[in-house]
Amino acid sequence: MPGSPITSSARGVFAIAPTPFTPDGAVDTTSLDRLTDFYTASGVTGITVLGQLGEAPKLAHDEAVAIAARVVRRVQVPVVVGVSAPGFAAMRSLTAAVMDAGAAGVMIAPPNTLRTDDQITAYYRNAAQAIGPDVPFVIQDYPLTFSVVMTPKVIRAIVAENPGCVMLKHEDWPGLEKISALRGFERDGSMRRLSILCGNGGLFLDFETERGADGAMTGYCFPDMLVELVELAARGEREAAHDLFDAHLPLLRYEQQPGVGLAVRKYVFARRGILDHEAQRAPAATLSAAARAEVDLLLERLARRDGRARLSPLAR
Amino acid sequence: MPGSPITSSARGVFAIAPTPFTPDGAVDTTSLDRLTDFYTASGVTGITVLGQLGEAPKLAHDEAVAIAARVVRRVQVPVVVGVSAPGFAAMRSLTAAVMDAGAAGVMIAPPNTLRTDDQITAYYRNAAQAIGPDVPFVIQDYPLTFSVVMTPKVIRAIVAENPGCVMLKHEDWPGLEKISALRGFERDGSMRRLSILCGNGGLFLDFETERGADGAMTGYCFPDMLVELVELAARGEREAAHDLFDAHLPLLRYEQQPGVGLAVRKYVFARRGILDHEAQRAPAATLSAAARAEVDLLLERLARRDGRARLSPLAR
Amino acid sequence: MPGSPITSSARGVFAIAPTPFTPDGAVDTTSLDRLTDFYTASGVTGITVLGQLGEAPKLAHDEAVAIAARVVRRVQVPVVVGVSAPGFAAMRSLTAAVMDAGAAGVMIAPPNTLRTDDQITAYYRNAAQAIGPDVPFVIQDYPLTFSVVMTPKVIRAIVAENPGCVMLKHEDWPGLEKISALRGFERDGSMRRLSILCGNGGLFLDFETERGADGAMTGYCFPDMLVELVELAARGEREAAHDLFDAHLPLLRYEQQPGVGLAVRKYVFARRGILDHEAQRAPAATLSAAARAEVDLLLERLARRDGRARLSPLAR
Amino acid sequence: MPGSPITSSARGVFAIAPTPFTPDGAVDTTSLDRLTDFYTASGVTGITVLGQLGEAPKLAHDEAVAIAARVVRRVQVPVVVGVSAPGFAAMRSLTAAVMDAGAAGVMIAPPNTLRTDDQITAYYRNAAQAIGPDVPFVIQDYPLTFSVVMTPKVIRAIVAENPGCVMLKHEDWPGLEKISALRGFERDGSMRRLSILCGNGGLFLDFETERGADGAMTGYCFPDMLVELVELAARGEREAAHDLFDAHLPLLRYEQQPGVGLAVRKYVFARRGILDHEAQRAPAATLSAAARAEVDLLLERLARRDGRARLSPLAR
Repeated sequence: MPGSPITSSARGVFAIAPTPFTPDGAVDTTSLDRLTDFYTASGVTGITVLGQLGEAPKLAHDEAVAIAARVVRRVQVPVVVGVSAPGFAAMRSLTAAVMDAGAAGVMIAPPNTLRTDDQITAYYRNAAQAIGPDVPFVIQDYPLTFSVVMTPKVIRAIVAENPGCVMLKHEDWPGLEKISALRGFERDGSMRRLSILCGNGGLFLDFETERGADGAMTGYCFPDMLVELVELAARGEREAAHDLFDAHLPLLRYEQQPGVGLAVRKYVFARRGILDHEAQRAPAATLSAAARAEVDLLLERLARRDGRARLSPLAR
Repeated sequence: MPGSPITSSARGVFAIAPTPFTPDGAVDTTSLDRLTDFYTASGVTGITVLGQLGEAPKLAHDEAVAIAARVVRRVQVPVVVGVSAPGFAAMRSLTAAVMDAGAAGVMIAPPNTLRTDDQITAYYRNAAQAIGPDVPFVIQDYPLTFSVVMTPKVIRAIVAENPGCVMLKHEDWPGLEKISALRGFERDGSMRRLSILCGNGGLFLDFETERGADGAMTGYCFPDMLVELVELAARGEREAAHDLFDAHLPLLRYEQQPGVGLAVRKYVFARRGILDHEAQRAPAATLSAAARAEVDLLLERLARRDGRARLSPLAR
Repeated sequence: MPGSPITSSARGVFAIAPTPFTPDGAVDTTSLDRLTDFYTASGVTGITVLGQLGEAPKLAHDEAVAIAARVVRRVQVPVVVGVSAPGFAAMRSLTAAVMDAGAAGVMIAPPNTLRTDDQITAYYRNAAQAIGPDVPFVIQDYPLTFSVVMTPKVIRAIVAENPGCVMLKHEDWPGLEKISALRGFERDGSMRRLSILCGNGGLFLDFETERGADGAMTGYCFPDMLVELVELAARGEREAAHDLFDAHLPLLRYEQQPGVGLAVRKYVFARRGILDHEAQRAPAATLSAAARAEVDLLLERLARRDGRARLSPLAR
Repeated sequence: MPGSPITSSARGVFAIAPTPFTPDGAVDTTSLDRLTDFYTASGVTGITVLGQLGEAPKLAHDEAVAIAARVVRRVQVPVVVGVSAPGFAAMRSLTAAVMDAGAAGVMIAPPNTLRTDDQITAYYRNAAQAIGPDVPFVIQDYPLTFSVVMTPKVIRAIVAENPGCVMLKHEDWPGLEKISALRGFERDGSMRRLSILCGNGGLFLDFETERGADGAMTGYCFPDMLVELVELAARGEREAAHDLFDAHLPLLRYEQQPGVGLAVRKYVFARRGILDHEAQRAPAATLSAAARAEVDLLLERLARRDGRARLSPLAR
């Protein structure tokens, strides 16, 4: 049963799901189901599939739709689907298919060729037209990866022009002032409310919630911690929130490295018993023995402060 | 009947075909057939569909395959299909479909995130593996658009590693010395022969043939002129070749503008009676009235030196 | 005697001067003087020194000031000096020195890290403050080289904010519609008049004048042709203007290649007897024997239509 | 008294010094001296001035030389000077001036226009020639800021070609495997020893030392912590090193934000009583009240684990 469409009042944690593969490159549906159930048990308020770290470009159209549909069927929470594509034809057809399958909305990243403010707003206008007026969508604002810089004013312009735009996946860096600026626009009445969920691996989530973010949309390998952190912040338990965050920061920072981060994430999910395999489809970054040992050390140190990190070693 | 696979001995002119659309955005198969026949009548030695200027990203997978198949069925010459994609899954499935339909090979542009020599060679290694060892492919070397700079040594490395790499769509800028360097590699035995067909709108085709290029792969709106030019150059009629080229250069330069170039091309094809419509799918650059008048003037001036440019005005 | 400050009513041709060097890398003042006199004799209405193709970054501060001062002393026309720099301290000190020496204004290119509209306008605001309110300046809008894309609206904002901004070196590509848009802003009263001089090697100068440009600011090796062309256009002798332009286009296009273009320019200036040496300071692009022969052929062919290209070969 | 030239056996911590300014924009020599003395007292093994975060582009040539000379005269340890410049003329003259003043070497970052391996190695070859064979230099490898990606093989090639290249400021991200690769080159005899000091704000210093780095060259506002950390790691006190690092990570991560990071650094140095002013020259990023409060909280939390962070509030 699909969740209802995402709205601008969404809060909490939307987990960015990696796509599990078997070592021979097939989609590992057993692990996918286990991962989905784990997210539910962790208390996430939504799941995002086929994002940047979901290896979306390595999936054929039918595989992508099947994954989205499978997750949708298994959960009560809304499922957002990444539909970024080099052209609007592919974006339109993927959006239609996943919305049919019960997705709650789609996420759209800008192509890395955009430069001017007008190019960015025009892109989202065209994209919104391509997916259709009834599909709620998420702006993915990730300059580090996409090389597209959106000022708060540009985001406001996109929101104003497109009723379907209900959420921002905020991962600008630095980004704290951007959250304050957007919430300021809401307060001064120049922009309607936008759900702001933060990405960037969670690296600034301790302060992002304090600045007004509604939560997180990221794939850190302890989504259960993210949920707890956002709840602590919502209840105003500031010290406890920072203590929890700081305990995880060494690992979180390690996982947030570009390129190798997904391998860390899959490794920890394997150690947590959620994924059967760490496999990625080619081209894949892999972890060296040294890197594995570093992650093991980080988990071991984390376990002293958070029992969730007390894990058995991987059988080899 | 499909042509045989492209090989490293390919010569002449491979026309880059625009994709004709009707004003409501459907693929205009009538115009596509007329365009295909026009290419045949122009004496091209090959046709390339779904390239950068074929609006490939605006086509759904099935549309793309249908276009390639339709052109293949109608001609005797080899048809190359652009299969550049953000991921190898889409590249693989599109390649399989068009090769099944009788394509003679595929063309692969590098994603604009590649920087180092090793990243570029790794990309083509992975791409070659994705499409399969039996599919001949063309490297598209177009730094102006893709921001990826391939030195002659990098191209040599790609050729050495991948038996399927038989052709270079050369559109580096400046690029004349690159042709000389690659032909030098062949002479000194460090690289096997590569078919080099030049793009970049033909802006340096007068000298590219003299430097050793085998011809052109570009979409200039007078492919019949390109064919004649390459033949003149091949017969050593240098003065005649330059005279012909210089007559076309003012228009050719105008058409080679990024962004607006495709609109010019479709406009002239419409004026030549080959396309029924100038329509592009969104997002589309359009010609202002001033730009149309400029193209009209260029055609009028060209017509004094080349009768092929003597065209009736478009009925409005 | 310095010319008076540049104003927004400037017209004609501002020649972009290359910096002449001797083979051992010293500034070649004899050639510089001869070049300056040649510009005067060619009828230019201004000279620009220390631009992108003036090898400005290869000059020490004192050398740069000395070159600017030497040219200023020798001519009656205004001299614009390129002062683009990675920081405002260097821009301020170079501006102060050359304005003291009698320069008529300065030219400022944006650093290639700027992305958003606000970043661009902020940059010019800071730059204008750094050089001081009394120094007239030229915006250099050259996205191909600087990767900074300025919309007409951004240029209008810069003009509105900075009284010193009186001229645009227009070299966007494609750029014809931009000229029309800016002149439209003037007509609708939303922007004060701006002198628009076109660069980009002159590749579209035939139509740029017709769109409303005031002339050219570029370094093509036949500035005397540019002057004649702009005058023909100003007198409405359209056919003659196009005939002259088309005759030069094959060479002009060859010279306009990035990287190697300056070597072509210096080679032709040497063949014209204006520069004693083709030398560039390191890092320098040089002409291969094949490239020299190509330029020779282009000159020979041009000479049939323009006697100014009838040149003796270089003594070797 | 200047220290002796830097060599490939350099170890420990080279502090990247910010440049102190007074609120009216003058160089604040009182604070500069106090900062220099603080570095000495902290046990640094070197100081780097005029780096990326030393606001070097905002300094006139004479100011830059004066700052370098002042620091050199005050310390026993080697002083490295950033001489990155858009052209070799400025690099040469700044290098000559600071080496005369007793600098121990210079640091060179690549211009952000470089793409291919050959372009990068050619750049360092030309740079080494410009500064002269007797000047030891540091490669700054910071792709996040400079957009230039150097593979380990390219670094090896630069080291092989240039005897003066003795040190790498390592700040690739991710970068741990790069350290391992370079140390591997040394072990297999394919590269001579290189001093590797890590930057990137110190964000991975816990593991970088374990991978074989010789220490840090970064500007974190607790250089005394960096010195202690590198010493703990050198003595094999792994747990203590990680404990110290983890305690600082929340603040260190906050300071490592692009753009705003320097403001954080100057603010903390002001709170530590080392700088009299937080002022930057324009263009400057400033801290909002919210950001100040965040830094204050991070310091307060840090103070529970490291007494060095127990600071009085700034008088206002």
